[in-house]
Amino acid sequence: MTYNDQSDVPTPRPPQPRVFDGWYVVKRSKDLGSTPCAVTLLDQRIVLFRNELGEPAALLDRCPHRNAPLSLGRTKSGALECPYHGWRFATSGECVGVPGSCREPGHPSRKAVAFSALDQDGMIWVYARPDCTPPGRPYALPYQAEAGYQHVHATLMMEGSLHATAENALDVPHTAFLHRGLFRQPGSSPPIEVTVRRWHDRVEAEYVGEPRPGGVLGRMLAPQGGIVTHFDRFILPCVAQVEYRLGPKAHLIATTLLTPESDYQTRLYGVVTFRLPIALPGSLISSIAKPVAMRVLRQDADMLARQTQNIESFGEQRFNSTELDALGPPILRLLERAERGELEEPTEQPRTRSFTLQL
Amino acid sequence: MTYNDQSDVPTPRPPQPRVFDGWYVVKRSKDLGSTPCAVTLLDQRIVLFRNELGEPAALLDRCPHRNAPLSLGRTKSGALECPYHGWRFATSGECVGVPGSCREPGHPSRKAVAFSALDQDGMIWVYARPDCTPPGRPYALPYQAEAGYQHVHATLMMEGSLHATAENALDVPHTAFLHRGLFRQPGSSPPIEVTVRRWHDRVEAEYVGEPRPGGVLGRMLAPQGGIVTHFDRFILPCVAQVEYRLGPKAHLIATTLLTPESDYQTRLYGVVTFRLPIALPGSLISSIAKPVAMRVLRQDADMLARQTQNIESFGEQRFNSTELDALGPPILRLLERAERGELEEPTEQPRTRSFTLQL
Amino acid sequence: MTYNDQSDVPTPRPPQPRVFDGWYVVKRSKDLGSTPCAVTLLDQRIVLFRNELGEPAALLDRCPHRNAPLSLGRTKSGALECPYHGWRFATSGECVGVPGSCREPGHPSRKAVAFSALDQDGMIWVYARPDCTPPGRPYALPYQAEAGYQHVHATLMMEGSLHATAENALDVPHTAFLHRGLFRQPGSSPPIEVTVRRWHDRVEAEYVGEPRPGGVLGRMLAPQGGIVTHFDRFILPCVAQVEYRLGPKAHLIATTLLTPESDYQTRLYGVVTFRLPIALPGSLISSIAKPVAMRVLRQDADMLARQTQNIESFGEQRFNSTELDALGPPILRLLERAERGELEEPTEQPRTRSFTLQL
Repeated sequence: MTYNDQSDVPTPRPPQPRVFDGWYVVKRSKDLGSTPCAVTLLDQRIVLFRNELGEPAALLDRCPHRNAPLSLGRTKSGALECPYHGWRFATSGECVGVPGSCREPGHPSRKAVAFSALDQDGMIWVYARPDCTPPGRPYALPYQAEAGYQHVHATLMMEGSLHATAENALDVPHTAFLHRGLFRQPGSSPPIEVTVRRWHDRVEAEYVGEPRPGGVLGRMLAPQGGIVTHFDRFILPCVAQVEYRLGPKAHLIATTLLTPESDYQTRLYGVVTFRLPIALPGSLISSIAKPVAMRVLRQDADMLARQTQNIESFGEQRFNSTELDALGPPILRLLERAERGELEEPTEQPRTRSFTLQL
Repeated sequence: MTYNDQSDVPTPRPPQPRVFDGWYVVKRSKDLGSTPCAVTLLDQRIVLFRNELGEPAALLDRCPHRNAPLSLGRTKSGALECPYHGWRFATSGECVGVPGSCREPGHPSRKAVAFSALDQDGMIWVYARPDCTPPGRPYALPYQAEAGYQHVHATLMMEGSLHATAENALDVPHTAFLHRGLFRQPGSSPPIEVTVRRWHDRVEAEYVGEPRPGGVLGRMLAPQGGIVTHFDRFILPCVAQVEYRLGPKAHLIATTLLTPESDYQTRLYGVVTFRLPIALPGSLISSIAKPVAMRVLRQDADMLARQTQNIESFGEQRFNSTELDALGPPILRLLERAERGELEEPTEQPRTRSFTLQL
Repeated sequence: MTYNDQSDVPTPRPPQPRVFDGWYVVKRSKDLGSTPCAVTLLDQRIVLFRNELGEPAALLDRCPHRNAPLSLGRTKSGALECPYHGWRFATSGECVGVPGSCREPGHPSRKAVAFSALDQDGMIWVYARPDCTPPGRPYALPYQAEAGYQHVHATLMMEGSLHATAENALDVPHTAFLHRGLFRQPGSSPPIEVTVRRWHDRVEAEYVGEPRPGGVLGRMLAPQGGIVTHFDRFILPCVAQVEYRLGPKAHLIATTLLTPESDYQTRLYGVVTFRLPIALPGSLISSIAKPVAMRVLRQDADMLARQTQNIESFGEQRFNSTELDALGPPILRLLERAERGELEEPTEQPRTRSFTLQL
């Protein structure tokens, strides 16, 4: 056996699971106005626009007439006008105008492919399977209307699969190596008990015995020390969430909404929601936490890109896991099941397993 | 069904019809001297050169010896010399020299692949199928030797298929949208009667009732107004032609010779031939008409590139036509038949259809 | 038949023979320190490092855990540490550390793929088939320890296959054309008798009757003239060697070690070993010979790149040889046999053929 990644045909990139039956974020609400704009979701090129009521709409970004990108057109009386020959489409995709013609435009063969679109929690959500009625609504971000909570938003592109990006966002052991000096020190922690709980559509890891974070950040969050509660969660198809409680007051939920533009390009819409023991202005917190957070994210982005490069060049993803890999393997199984439409039956009680982590 | 354009194998670009049995322009005559130069025709890399009599020749740009590009070589005594080991080839492709060898060079296995080449109407024409005797001569440009006519040449590259480029060059309805403000105004015209005539090797649309163009150009062409005669034509395999007569004197024929370098790259050799009611210097006409024409062409080039991008990224060309699409569908059928060598029998009378265009 | 290189699927590059059972140079010894570095051999991405004894090691550049490139890691106590989660690997590939885990790391499933690596003649050699015991040692460079010999090293990348690069390095007829004016003049030589000798693992051409090289170089090497002895050799899998003796004293062996990084990218490690009739400082020789040598190499590199481009764009390598092509065809046969593991039986007497070269 040899390990050359090339033969006489171009290397296929190993495909990643794709969950079309689900809602994903494709834009922040504030960034979608009356001008049409193009986004990509699971390799589908989509044009977004708003009708006269301000409601978001999403069509396949291809005019049924000559396949021109509708996103180069304009909205006119709530309809989207193709830039090439001026065909017009309603939010439903129906063709409502063919300039120059004396006949009725609305023939079904002229309908543009349409996606369900919604405005929720400051995000434009699109259901990834077109021309269908979604069975439910998007994931609702927690604590959005709660008093005493502040919210910070950020957007970032990762050159990694949804799975690898979600695992990276929720993985603890890599922090001591990839983020050496910024986060945890190798060999500095007491043993931590980890419990992994798995439901039909989500998986969660709880960390018990984790020490209070050191430094300014730790003192700010819990001046008198206290117990740390830490959960990492993945919820199908696109939510990666880290929740920390520290002492009686401090509470932080970092929710990352993962949008797979293609198999190895994942856009992150991050919302950090938090409450502090003492009232501090958001600008102060931001100036302390942001530089460290950005450095951590850049290291993660760089490693995901390198991992992707290797997977592509070897033409395969060959992962070998230990018990320390709390969420990566179950996230992959959830995605694969959801792709095939074969989720397990919902149950009250999750399946659990536990192990000790000695960083 | 979903609309993702990627899977684990690279997306194939949908192939376009390719007519190898036909003459195409590959260079303007004035641009081919004694130095060999490389051109591309239907994805075939070809080297052009002239022999000692100045006759043009076209060989496959690959030395039969070690596959070096002959276009990097030089001509010597009317033969083309390979830059790597100095093998020499006559215009017929025959090998006439192998330096260092004491034997006869002209073994048939050493022949370079050759194409028929001709100098006509200021253009170098090449027959796209190599090593064969063409059944006829290239299309002859009209009015080239006629007194009172002037001629303007231009060359342009389009990132679009021959079919899409020809349709775009001959399509009327898009002018009110893509070229909004430069050409026709939507809603400004009276109804126009359009008749489409189809022969075995060409198709033509005649527009009856079209108003005289407005602005400086219109007044220049027909000071006293008059009847507009307007034909759009496609002639296999590569001629797109627009003909206008305005009043008794003004006559304009814009012929575009389309050269498919590859499925989605088409080079245009344009010749605008015209006679004006009053004698005006070519430089004056050019200074009035050229800026508008260039802007129109840039908009067309941009739209064709976007259309091509969409076709490639969706992995398919899925066109939906109405009766207004006068020439696009019949041009595609002509190309597909010619590709398969299944043209209809020639007839005197064309097949016709008519419709009303209300721009 | 037509010669278009494109269809609806991307053109496959014609594959080249790949000999995995052999030693290749991947680095000069002086350029490998304690920091890991990445190299490529037959499309296999490999990380090199040295253990605490300074011994070279080569592992597949992919961590068995999450496929991160090990070459971005560091060496620690003679082991290679992955940059993502800190897994550590010995030179054998064995996993010797999984940070955070309380269990034994060395499970066979966690072993990194390992290649045999050696330090010899100032080069790091790697056996291209991983996880095996090589049947022999690398090719030993001649005259390395001999008194009176000087050595010059150079490294260069060629955009050509190992076969095309080896043929180019050992081919005589092209010098009069590609290197016109720098080397041999067409028509200037007396006839040269060439004898080609072929063994099971090598092939050699001897040139008899070659005149002493002209110019400064020739006078420097053989002030009193004398007989020229000239051999060109290829030895499986990667040695191209030119040997000149001129008069009783001058002796030059230019050995090129060819490393196929991929089918059409070959890195050259050149060693020129020579003895002169009069003692001249290396710097003087270098200042005379180097500019010419570099110009020749740049012309070769350019031609190989053009040849490769043509082979790729035509989707095939179609070579037509004459008797003058002394070594190209037998080198290709040797590589193809070695790839299939079907070398001929070793024999004392080589097979021979002869011809006359009239440059």
